[in-house]
Amino acid sequence: ISWISDIIVVVSPENIETMKTIIEKYGHKRVTVVEGGITRHRSIFNGLKVFAENEFSSHLVQKPEVVIIHDAVRPFVEEDIVSKVVMAAKEHGAAGAIRPLVSTVIASAADGCLDHSLERARYRASEMPQAFLFDIIYEAYQQCTDYDLDYGTECLHLALKYCKTNAKLVEGTADLWKVTYKRDLYAAESIIKDNLSQQVCVITNVKETLAQVGFLLPESLKSQIKVEAISISLSKNDSHLQNIISGQCYNFVCVNDKRWAIQETQELVDMLEKSNIPLLCPVVLILVHLDISENNSFSIGMEDLTTIKKFARETKKKNILVYALLIQYK
Amino acid sequence: ISWISDIIVVVSPENIETMKTIIEKYGHKRVTVVEGGITRHRSIFNGLKVFAENEFSSHLVQKPEVVIIHDAVRPFVEEDIVSKVVMAAKEHGAAGAIRPLVSTVIASAADGCLDHSLERARYRASEMPQAFLFDIIYEAYQQCTDYDLDYGTECLHLALKYCKTNAKLVEGTADLWKVTYKRDLYAAESIIKDNLSQQVCVITNVKETLAQVGFLLPESLKSQIKVEAISISLSKNDSHLQNIISGQCYNFVCVNDKRWAIQETQELVDMLEKSNIPLLCPVVLILVHLDISENNSFSIGMEDLTTIKKFARETKKKNILVYALLIQYK
Repeated sequence: ISWISDIIVVVSPENIETMKTIIEKYGHKRVTVVEGGITRHRSIFNGLKVFAENEFSSHLVQKPEVVIIHDAVRPFVEEDIVSKVVMAAKEHGAAGAIRPLVSTVIASAADGCLDHSLERARYRASEMPQAFLFDIIYEAYQQCTDYDLDYGTECLHLALKYCKTNAKLVEGTADLWKVTYKRDLYAAESIIKDNLSQQVCVITNVKETLAQVGFLLPESLKSQIKVEAISISLSKNDSHLQNIISGQCYNFVCVNDKRWAIQETQELVDMLEKSNIPLLCPVVLILVHLDISENNSFSIGMEDLTTIKKFARETKKKNILVYALLIQYK
Repeated sequence: ISWISDIIVVVSPENIETMKTIIEKYGHKRVTVVEGGITRHRSIFNGLKVFAENEFSSHLVQKPEVVIIHDAVRPFVEEDIVSKVVMAAKEHGAAGAIRPLVSTVIASAADGCLDHSLERARYRASEMPQAFLFDIIYEAYQQCTDYDLDYGTECLHLALKYCKTNAKLVEGTADLWKVTYKRDLYAAESIIKDNLSQQVCVITNVKETLAQVGFLLPESLKSQIKVEAISISLSKNDSHLQNIISGQCYNFVCVNDKRWAIQETQELVDMLEKSNIPLLCPVVLILVHLDISENNSFSIGMEDLTTIKKFARETKKKNILVYALLIQYK
């Protein structure tokens, strides 16, 4: 999200080195790491101090007009909801995403029995992201008591209590849920895989003999997933292909009439490596060799097999999975 | 859960036929299907009427002392929590499972802004199962208003309001969550697969030559999953194997020195079919043929291949997946 100028990541002391390694490995920019406190509110307060108190950061971070507070356990936040809470915070001083309640909320008495239940329609679950005029939320954290810092959880509550700011509530999407239990990890993994498998780029080289395949394959895939079809020689540094890679395409089918064109594939691997797309998830390259010769022999030479296996083993270290297909085509 | 005597499934009119097909297909006993109403409370009330009003059921269902109310969207309920809420209901008249709140709950004002937030520690999410003395919950439903039936959601609330019964609240496990969103389907699927893959039964036939494999394979699997190892001839109707199948084991490895012993495997398939385990999830049978002959030829005869393929195709219709491995063993 390009209009976010600085990102403060608040991390428990024992994980700071790991976080710094991650930031360096994936080339994240605009990020400052800050040590967390023993409670949620103390951690957020530490994060906010970076903008206001020089001793909390090694480099100068400019105080923003609006600050967004978000939980890392909600990894599927969309730009749309972030933008909405920011605009609402500019107008109202504070804003936060909400969702309908999934279960009824009840209050229990001291004896472990039901005291009363809340009317579900009148209440909402308060989710993240939330956004605030920086001066409001920072003032609220400076004013609040140790009890608030130790037992409270709700930033909107602090803005209301200490700055008389009634936050604007913005309806969020189901994707904002908190990855809390083991089952949520399963769900998160499936959502990521689902998203990444929605787009494929079919690359055919420029020869006329392949034009038909370059047309028919994307046509037949189109009804199910998003397909980009390009016809280029990979050895040229094609800007259209560059754009597809930057658009986080993780699946490529390269159709060629040369047997598993290793050298051209290497160019693609190099482009993927040089691009800034995070290789957290494997990229899948399917090399299709269309054997259009009249020759009927369908044997695979040991040498070819060894070359492609060695190549695939090397790229796997970069989290790029290479598969090779030999198809006889008459 | 053997101590539950009758199960009333409340289904929307358009799904009654589908539900009856499912009940018949999987041989569910003790089940009566009832037509649901247009709201949650009206559906539950319809379900309860089966025990109290003869015209609501084609066969006589005896009125129970305690009735359990549960949501079908919480498929992972354990006997332990069901038992706990039933015992608590016998003592207190009503009881329900609760969970800590994952998000803060807030009340919004008419202008869409924050009115107040609830102190998270004082509240709980009310989940299912819940249990009641039948006379209490039935009385509550008979007393309650149309407004309750149309807009209410909480059975514990009805028991409190109309029968002055403060339900006992019982801490439940995370597994009680509601399968609500698409991501919950992903999570549910993964949990089922995870559970089913936790147990494997290794079957070796009685010949001495295989004794070593029958010992070493289970030993090496044991550190990761639950392994039952038995050495029998499948053609005998072994009661130990019967018990393993009834215990919902879905994975079998059959090690044999005869080439993919189809006939013996058929006996296992028959046992699986005759058992009452629901074949909702595929059973996996891996047939391992250990070639212990001195003969070096490693070829696979076309006839063998055809036989095993045909067999696998047949068992697949019964949701039993057969894989065959040929291992040369010296």
